[in-house]
Amino acid sequence: MNSSPVKIGLLGLGTVGAGTVNVLARNQDEIQRRAGRAIQCAKACVQDVSKPRGCDLSAVQLTTNVHDILDDPEIGVVVELIGGEATAREWVLRAIRNKKHVVTANKALIAKHGQEIFSEANKAGVMVAFEAAVAGGIPIIKTLREGLAGNRVSRVTGIINGTCNFILTEMREKGRDFTDVLQEAQQLGYAEADPTFDIEGVDAAHKLTILAAIAFGMPLLFDSVYTEGVSTVTAEDVANAESLGYRIKHLGIASQTEKGVELRVHPALVPKQRLLASVEGVMNAVEIQADAVGEALFYGPGAGADPTASAVVADIVDVVRQLTADPENRVPHLAFQPDNLNHPAIVPMEEIETAYYVYCLVSDQPGVLADITAIFAAHKISISAIEQHHAAGVQSQVPLMLLTKTTKESNLQGALKEMADLESVKGKVKRIRVELEH
Amino acid sequence: MNSSPVKIGLLGLGTVGAGTVNVLARNQDEIQRRAGRAIQCAKACVQDVSKPRGCDLSAVQLTTNVHDILDDPEIGVVVELIGGEATAREWVLRAIRNKKHVVTANKALIAKHGQEIFSEANKAGVMVAFEAAVAGGIPIIKTLREGLAGNRVSRVTGIINGTCNFILTEMREKGRDFTDVLQEAQQLGYAEADPTFDIEGVDAAHKLTILAAIAFGMPLLFDSVYTEGVSTVTAEDVANAESLGYRIKHLGIASQTEKGVELRVHPALVPKQRLLASVEGVMNAVEIQADAVGEALFYGPGAGADPTASAVVADIVDVVRQLTADPENRVPHLAFQPDNLNHPAIVPMEEIETAYYVYCLVSDQPGVLADITAIFAAHKISISAIEQHHAAGVQSQVPLMLLTKTTKESNLQGALKEMADLESVKGKVKRIRVELEH
Repeated sequence: MNSSPVKIGLLGLGTVGAGTVNVLARNQDEIQRRAGRAIQCAKACVQDVSKPRGCDLSAVQLTTNVHDILDDPEIGVVVELIGGEATAREWVLRAIRNKKHVVTANKALIAKHGQEIFSEANKAGVMVAFEAAVAGGIPIIKTLREGLAGNRVSRVTGIINGTCNFILTEMREKGRDFTDVLQEAQQLGYAEADPTFDIEGVDAAHKLTILAAIAFGMPLLFDSVYTEGVSTVTAEDVANAESLGYRIKHLGIASQTEKGVELRVHPALVPKQRLLASVEGVMNAVEIQADAVGEALFYGPGAGADPTASAVVADIVDVVRQLTADPENRVPHLAFQPDNLNHPAIVPMEEIETAYYVYCLVSDQPGVLADITAIFAAHKISISAIEQHHAAGVQSQVPLMLLTKTTKESNLQGALKEMADLESVKGKVKRIRVELEH
Repeated sequence: MNSSPVKIGLLGLGTVGAGTVNVLARNQDEIQRRAGRAIQCAKACVQDVSKPRGCDLSAVQLTTNVHDILDDPEIGVVVELIGGEATAREWVLRAIRNKKHVVTANKALIAKHGQEIFSEANKAGVMVAFEAAVAGGIPIIKTLREGLAGNRVSRVTGIINGTCNFILTEMREKGRDFTDVLQEAQQLGYAEADPTFDIEGVDAAHKLTILAAIAFGMPLLFDSVYTEGVSTVTAEDVANAESLGYRIKHLGIASQTEKGVELRVHPALVPKQRLLASVEGVMNAVEIQADAVGEALFYGPGAGADPTASAVVADIVDVVRQLTADPENRVPHLAFQPDNLNHPAIVPMEEIETAYYVYCLVSDQPGVLADITAIFAAHKISISAIEQHHAAGVQSQVPLMLLTKTTKESNLQGALKEMADLESVKGKVKRIRVELEH
């Protein structure tokens, strides 16, 4: 097994580039334990070497000349993060002809020039990976290409543009107008200075083109995608949809029908009870309908430095595993190399910390709440809600329930034990933990 | 490239086995286009060859002697679907020593004997795949091992037992008691005749053991999982949780904390607004918290013949791709072999069929609704809701909105055009499509 580090060259060092440098550095140890080999970000091509980048560049050689990367025999993997079409296509093709593996986050490049690039890569015997091109941190390309490989896919429905989803969510939650929210999205960095590609649906159409090809085994047909954006949706439409039991989402839809394949991107009313309707803000989600799995949904952040870097680095690890491992052990069974497992301490249950729901029957008499709250206070447990239901008529026992704030399980056990000993508490005191509160 | 079919031998032909035979047969063409090679289910080992199996066995040789499969040099991949521990372990180890790749859906086997099996597989140079062991049709093993390989995972929270989730969902939706719902689940085939493993949390603990190892790079520590089932949850607890803004879910939790790793399976109150709280019935979902991706969630059916077969077949395709393709082209860029893409008809937008929300301003005068509904009827469009808001005071224009049933886009366009020509309709008539209604 080759144990020298794999050297990466980045083309572009914007938001996602800096995120990739950061993730590779921060998780160096875990990534090496997974990939079986160190991954080193050796060079980055930028337009301005003096611009601050928000990442530690002490081990990264900056250059303004792309050939310092594309023609360097030491660079094994080129990561294209400049976006756009013409230059990206030229550089990627040159990297491929120089026998370098390519990882890209560029949806326009793949949607419009994918087939040419893949064909060149097959000829050159190198890999081209593009997980980050669709739905940011959600590994939807891998899921469709590999995880659902036994299925006949009938429909892909995705919220695949975070800017549109953020705008529609804000319009609904705060009753605000489109223009107003768009300005905020631009200030927050969720929308580009020129937001046309996002809000007119072009970005979503690039991504849908890729999803449809992979789901249905068809070519990349960007020009066949019907595209409508969100700029015509008004606050009144959003409120009307809500009153009818729907939420407006900007969807990309690829659907197999008897007439052929539908490829379309447009706003749509989605019934509130569907999971997709609950996908809010800049989050993305893709729902798959397929004959064997039935319905599945994959949810996560669709953009941003770290989530997109998550997908870029996963692709780099895929390439490195393929270069490094014996074919039969490409991916280690337990994700990490077997001689590199940690043996962590397992936390005893008494030590875990969570919130609790507590329930018991108590005598319907004065002083019960005072006794119980005193016990919880003595065990340093804060109570966030307590309810005692007084019975109509004469009834000696009534239910009491309370919610605690986060505390140690041993503290709770101590309190419950004392509670059970109170004369006013009848029968068993029960507790159920509360999770995912924050 | 080797183009002869890969021959599969099934150990066990129960629900999942029959599902696997069905999926391999039904999607033969798509699977071969993805894997680059035909996959043939050649043999199956069963206890009773005359029992009906719910799948076409005309091409499958049945045997009661496992050595007809384990010792057959023609069989390349053994699929273990008998469940249980001792016999499954023995047969899997023998298959491995005979240089056969192994696919298994057996969570108990992997959780308790995984390390021994993986170590033998590494020695023999064969693959062992177990996607179907956790969360049925959701490719969560692949997602954690590969799709999120750049991340440091901090927490895995899963609804990973469909029986428990079905029971808790029924209790909430219908106010029913645990025992009552359990009986129904058994009749529906969602719960085993002996439901102990499911309802006491042992099955979830097996799955959590596997998820934790893969997420955190630690050994399989089944004995360290704290386990509580759902049998103590009452209808009253479920109602109380609801009134406090929560839903009770049976969770598997693996969490990295400062004190070490927490491994626990128990019922928990989950705030209603979390996606996990909306996972109902026999569905599963796994939420991942990790440093780069942030939060992601993967949702799908956790059990059943076809969904589990989806995972089994994905593993078989993974093995076959590794055996068949050039290393650099293990997974085709667009999922299917490049010379095997379909060129489907693309449906023109006028031909798509969906429901529509329609909005416009109309004069506040008698006869407007009659005119509009007549136009929709003439274009054969059914209206499912129509609302005209009458203004307080004197106002000449009021909003009108309607929802149609599913119709052809060209029909709608025709109706909207006529509507726009009505004297009583003011300004533009707007429509937004309605999706995912069923």
